[in-house]
Amino acid sequence: MTRYFRPNVARMAGYVPGEQPRDGGFIKLNTNENPYPPSPRVKEAIVATLTDRLRLYPDPMSTAFRQAAAKLHGIEPEMILAGNGSDDVLTIVTRAFVGPGDPAAYATPSYLLYSTLIQLQDGRAVLLPYSSEWTLDLADLAVPGLKLVYIANPDSPSGTAMPRERIAEILRTADCPVLVDEAYGDFADSRYHCIPLLGDHPNLIVSRSFSKGYSLAGIRLGYLAASAEMVEHLVKVKDSYNCDLLSQAAGVAALEDQSYLAQTRSKVQATRARLGDALRSLGYNVPESQSNFVWATGGPAPSRETFQRLKERRILVRLMSYPGYPEGLRVSVGTDDEIDQFLEALRQVI
Amino acid sequence: MTRYFRPNVARMAGYVPGEQPRDGGFIKLNTNENPYPPSPRVKEAIVATLTDRLRLYPDPMSTAFRQAAAKLHGIEPEMILAGNGSDDVLTIVTRAFVGPGDPAAYATPSYLLYSTLIQLQDGRAVLLPYSSEWTLDLADLAVPGLKLVYIANPDSPSGTAMPRERIAEILRTADCPVLVDEAYGDFADSRYHCIPLLGDHPNLIVSRSFSKGYSLAGIRLGYLAASAEMVEHLVKVKDSYNCDLLSQAAGVAALEDQSYLAQTRSKVQATRARLGDALRSLGYNVPESQSNFVWATGGPAPSRETFQRLKERRILVRLMSYPGYPEGLRVSVGTDDEIDQFLEALRQVI
Repeated sequence: MTRYFRPNVARMAGYVPGEQPRDGGFIKLNTNENPYPPSPRVKEAIVATLTDRLRLYPDPMSTAFRQAAAKLHGIEPEMILAGNGSDDVLTIVTRAFVGPGDPAAYATPSYLLYSTLIQLQDGRAVLLPYSSEWTLDLADLAVPGLKLVYIANPDSPSGTAMPRERIAEILRTADCPVLVDEAYGDFADSRYHCIPLLGDHPNLIVSRSFSKGYSLAGIRLGYLAASAEMVEHLVKVKDSYNCDLLSQAAGVAALEDQSYLAQTRSKVQATRARLGDALRSLGYNVPESQSNFVWATGGPAPSRETFQRLKERRILVRLMSYPGYPEGLRVSVGTDDEIDQFLEALRQVI
Repeated sequence: MTRYFRPNVARMAGYVPGEQPRDGGFIKLNTNENPYPPSPRVKEAIVATLTDRLRLYPDPMSTAFRQAAAKLHGIEPEMILAGNGSDDVLTIVTRAFVGPGDPAAYATPSYLLYSTLIQLQDGRAVLLPYSSEWTLDLADLAVPGLKLVYIANPDSPSGTAMPRERIAEILRTADCPVLVDEAYGDFADSRYHCIPLLGDHPNLIVSRSFSKGYSLAGIRLGYLAASAEMVEHLVKVKDSYNCDLLSQAAGVAALEDQSYLAQTRSKVQATRARLGDALRSLGYNVPESQSNFVWATGGPAPSRETFQRLKERRILVRLMSYPGYPEGLRVSVGTDDEIDQFLEALRQVI
């Protein structure tokens, strides 16, 4: 059977997404979902769309959604491309630029999917190690024939972010498209947001997600912002009808309720600060997070054991191992009550 | 800008999906949507899913959906893979098997997307021309290193289908995976359905869509059936969460309402017969259709003019040009009333 497959696919292990337990009863702090429900306007918008219109194909270009996203960011609709989750956006971008043998670089430690996407294209992964100050070395970008750079900003698992000025330096240095993955951007201070750089940097692509800030992981919606010319070519790579009718409507409703986003953001930011401080007081090393999770390494007990013991107590966090870093726990910011229960259980098991 | 892109992507024109007019008032017979609404159970299932669960990622493997689809076809759930529309399934399959320079073959005239998918992989398209009896020549499959064969069955634009026994001969002859695209299978007699061949043919992949028979083009859902081992490898190529929470629920509800499907199918089949006869009586050449559209070539007036004149009368059909065939009109089977209006307008313009 494997002989039928492309060799790069046959030998791949495949990306393993975070555990999604199908029985309830877990405090789920492992996949960085938002602990608060989406804006009530989203549900209303979906219900309003549940007409016989379902029998027709959706707008292939998600026009109303593009307009809403462009308005929010103060750019043109032609600079927006919607995707079936920001993973779809990352797939489209990778397929557009990276062919067999082509070098593509990603910051590390970071989102493990970048490596999977490069393997699927039979490309060559180039690692850009973060410094101890959570920044990148511009010299590492001097890779002949480099086709694409991925930077999660804020990063996962560290939660840290590079300021916009540093990203601008990277954009000037790299002679290829740079994808700045702002899946967690809604939890970061605006000085980390890179869409304002688009005017000066034709090689910039910024991706955004509805799974985190907008509490809509269940509907699969993300988008990218780039120059109109860049978007025009990227459109060729996407599936014709990649975003369905309901998610397009949900996305517009979510974008138009910025005050709701601001509320949940504030709550998550406050709980994040408290969670980070508590973990530090227990002896963990926790970088300052701009995201909706914290990354705890070191600490008083081996992370693998702690992970298991928390799981036995029906608390799921994510155990993450990266070369050059001690095994650590990535803990999503839950509700205050969930985080209290997590901290209480943690104190018992370490 | 184009220098950033893979050369195969930079030089592509991109697939152009059928027109989706955003203003209403058209009789829309151009993209083979079902004229009848989806089962009422679908709407109920979606509403029941609109809870705070939206904030969580969906089941990455669409487990409940796989079980429902497997039950319908009398196979194992591990033999089903769900996709964000059957286009997603076609993309996954192409990426799994076809690399740069690899030959991939598709029957012609057929779904134009196959060619786009091969171009996106920088593969080499091999055409398998249909005979005048709408069958393929087995000798055409003797292509060294052939990686994949696509066969739409029923085919578009012809509407014709090859019986299962002929597909079995193709499966025995081709030394590579054969994707039998049954997007229109719900409108065909069961003797054309190929899932029963799976047990004997490890190189068979059958794809199915909810956009046509189940009247759910708006939600984007499709699936493939193949051997469990084949599916296990194909999973590595899909986006982690390619099907959202709502479409998974909608798919289960639609599959479980087979009596509704049978009703709409009967209505479409009856209207299809009447439409085909009427077009033939006007002098068109119309192959016997197993699908929810008919393909009319020849006839008393040039197709391009007829297409335009119908459009001026707010009736959209699809003008299709294939090398070796006269330009023709592909007309979706609408409601009886829509088809009456179409035929009346057609008689006026030809």
